[in-house]
Amino acid sequence: KDDNYSEWYSQVITKAEMIEYYDVSGCYVLRPWSFSIWEAITEWFDTRIKRLGVKNCYFPMFVSAAALEREKTHIADFAPEVAWVTRAGSSEMSEPIAIRPTSETVMYPSFKKWVQSHRDLPLKLNQWCNVVRWEFKHPTPFLRTREFLWQEGHTAFATKEEAEKEVFDILDLYAGVYTNLLAIPVVKGRKSEKEKFAGGDFTTTVEAYVPVNGRGIQGATSHHLGQNFSKMFDISFESDKGKELAWQNSWGLSTRTIGAMVMIHSDDKGLVLPPRVAQIQVIVLAVGITGSTTEENRKKLTDEALKVADSLVEKDVRAESDLRDNYTSGWKFSHWELKGVPIRIEIGPKDLEKGEVMIVIRHNGEKKSIKREGMEKEIIQILENIHTDMYNKVVTSRDAHMTVTKNLDEMKKKLDEKFILLAPFCGIPSCEELIKRDTTREEVTEGGTAQMGAKTLCIPLDQ
Amino acid sequence: KDDNYSEWYSQVITKAEMIEYYDVSGCYVLRPWSFSIWEAITEWFDTRIKRLGVKNCYFPMFVSAAALEREKTHIADFAPEVAWVTRAGSSEMSEPIAIRPTSETVMYPSFKKWVQSHRDLPLKLNQWCNVVRWEFKHPTPFLRTREFLWQEGHTAFATKEEAEKEVFDILDLYAGVYTNLLAIPVVKGRKSEKEKFAGGDFTTTVEAYVPVNGRGIQGATSHHLGQNFSKMFDISFESDKGKELAWQNSWGLSTRTIGAMVMIHSDDKGLVLPPRVAQIQVIVLAVGITGSTTEENRKKLTDEALKVADSLVEKDVRAESDLRDNYTSGWKFSHWELKGVPIRIEIGPKDLEKGEVMIVIRHNGEKKSIKREGMEKEIIQILENIHTDMYNKVVTSRDAHMTVTKNLDEMKKKLDEKFILLAPFCGIPSCEELIKRDTTREEVTEGGTAQMGAKTLCIPLDQ
Repeated sequence: KDDNYSEWYSQVITKAEMIEYYDVSGCYVLRPWSFSIWEAITEWFDTRIKRLGVKNCYFPMFVSAAALEREKTHIADFAPEVAWVTRAGSSEMSEPIAIRPTSETVMYPSFKKWVQSHRDLPLKLNQWCNVVRWEFKHPTPFLRTREFLWQEGHTAFATKEEAEKEVFDILDLYAGVYTNLLAIPVVKGRKSEKEKFAGGDFTTTVEAYVPVNGRGIQGATSHHLGQNFSKMFDISFESDKGKELAWQNSWGLSTRTIGAMVMIHSDDKGLVLPPRVAQIQVIVLAVGITGSTTEENRKKLTDEALKVADSLVEKDVRAESDLRDNYTSGWKFSHWELKGVPIRIEIGPKDLEKGEVMIVIRHNGEKKSIKREGMEKEIIQILENIHTDMYNKVVTSRDAHMTVTKNLDEMKKKLDEKFILLAPFCGIPSCEELIKRDTTREEVTEGGTAQMGAKTLCIPLDQ
Repeated sequence: KDDNYSEWYSQVITKAEMIEYYDVSGCYVLRPWSFSIWEAITEWFDTRIKRLGVKNCYFPMFVSAAALEREKTHIADFAPEVAWVTRAGSSEMSEPIAIRPTSETVMYPSFKKWVQSHRDLPLKLNQWCNVVRWEFKHPTPFLRTREFLWQEGHTAFATKEEAEKEVFDILDLYAGVYTNLLAIPVVKGRKSEKEKFAGGDFTTTVEAYVPVNGRGIQGATSHHLGQNFSKMFDISFESDKGKELAWQNSWGLSTRTIGAMVMIHSDDKGLVLPPRVAQIQVIVLAVGITGSTTEENRKKLTDEALKVADSLVEKDVRAESDLRDNYTSGWKFSHWELKGVPIRIEIGPKDLEKGEVMIVIRHNGEKKSIKREGMEKEIIQILENIHTDMYNKVVTSRDAHMTVTKNLDEMKKKLDEKFILLAPFCGIPSCEELIKRDTTREEVTEGGTAQMGAKTLCIPLDQ
């Protein structure tokens, strides 16, 4: 991990069976082991936005050039990365059609039709879908891919106040995905003018710290669009004051979350899964069944392993047993460590005798015997502790690498030492460009080495 | 509905707020009122395939020409409808890339890598995604669209027997979506050689009857691919017998289900929703609150309406109240009928006095008073009855329009009378062509009128 983290990352995600490479560059297969994490995130977030009154829907993936280009600042940002369909079967299309890089311009012509009176507001929609951004930078599974999965929320309000409140309500849910599910601490903040979403009024973000490369990673963003899009798309309503433009937000969280989770928690043995998103939380093994033991002993051990797994499943723990007789225990230990399962339970002849089970904790290698009786309750508690421990470990590492700096020389030095810097800054985009230029040096990235300069992550809400 | 069902269909889906038209031809917006039905179907089916050991995953939407064209029979069927991406930003791509019309050719190169030993089988994957088939026929929302949502299951087995068993297990679940959720009877059967999935060994299907046009509608299909694809993609494993090819299935269910539901159940008043997929099962109205009543009476009525809705929600009934004071009761009656909500509860001053509520059942217009006390239990029972009634009504209509025929003249006559025919048939594709030609006549379709001949729906499993 420390020597060559680009190669390490690639090995972890393939060997843990999260990713399969694919013959279209920048596109990857999400195998069940990673997709199940996305399902856990989806379920958690979807339930909570529905409580806020957001409804799910589905808009087309295709967008006409006319609609796409309606908002100029917005399209300027996306134009170089838009994929165009120009042919169907053997017929050239009369007009090329774009694939959505995001759906503002797909949705807002409909918003115009649906919003007539203040009674049509607020309008709160969300969709879970794929989007395409044909980037030419080096692609990295989860983190920079040409197609990715995300949710995009699009909402419209009668007043600026309501809209702004929602931006931060959603930001809290995004923080929740990281802290409550992925055991990753995040800093909530606003993006600088240079880094904000093009066409919006302001962008809020949750930012995480990646110990291995000392960089921040953007977790998810919630944008207040102001009236910029409602002006372009004429999303308006009649009020006492005459015609008013709606106030809009958009917000998105993508499969990038999974990449952040891998980068932050995993180690040289492979993936480390936070318990709340692990498809298998506990793997139960009978040890010593492939050796020279008797058939009777073998049966006793495997029966017990099955029972242990069943009794955990009864208590809603996602437990499975691995009783394959064509693999050694040693092979299985490595295999399930590589896959990142939070707890391994081993059951050997001695454990059986003593009425105990041996547990091994993935993230810190801790090993201890616990009583078979009442084991279920203890395992549930340990899973909770693992979540907290993993979270705190990242907090500690981050806080040890976060400091205030007030001059450029120190900034450069600290950047090389994998620090995240809190630096006073006027906020002017040209000034941010200058700092970036002046801090540019060679740095190791997921795709090899690159010339990189400092960029702002956010202006923390909590100063 | 009977006079001009194409226009009727279009009005129902737009006025009930299920569909919004869109500026790319053949693409439509699924608004929350229809998308929530898809969510109900998704949840039901997803839970059940997981019990069968199927795991969800996500493969790229893009497919290289080389992979797409690997299986010749298969691509011959899809080639005319494939959408091609040829440009990214302002750069022409060196090779055009296709958008998946279905994912056999996307997934099977990975299957080849993952299947090495018989221990890697069965492999059971599913994805929920969008696919694109750029049809040039007249598009119809839900029923024939250029982009649509579906699930596609792709599985591989060591033996033909296991694979064939799964084809029918899945077919049973597809039948369940129609009968248990959508209150639509279906006939399970096999497709003829002419109508089966290209490249597969056989196709099974669930077929429903649409009273308004007298035609069958394909509900979902489950295919046994035999070893055709495993041969082309070299999906094989070592066994005692040497190298063996895997036996494969693929199976899909799409948003077409929603179109079938609209066509079959709805009426001249608008949409009729089967209770189990209705986003709102019960709408509660306080009547007489916009008239000349006192503020006190108004408050009594609206408080009671809120309480009634709450007590239903408590019992897991999806109930809401509509207490807007800017719409008359008459307007609300029509509105919620148009939206197809299964039960309307009206609460007026007399109901309040008598400790009753008035209920109106959408699908048959039945109106009756029930006691306020114990109302929740009765409503739950009525919702169940509505499901059964709606189902039986379609069965009755279908059975009255299904008959055995043994000659072509009778066949033509009965087709005009909106009959589904059970006809003996040799099964040879050229013979099916001949029957189609000889029965061709002008018929009303969703897109106007067209020259149509008889086509086989299926060979029913239950003869």
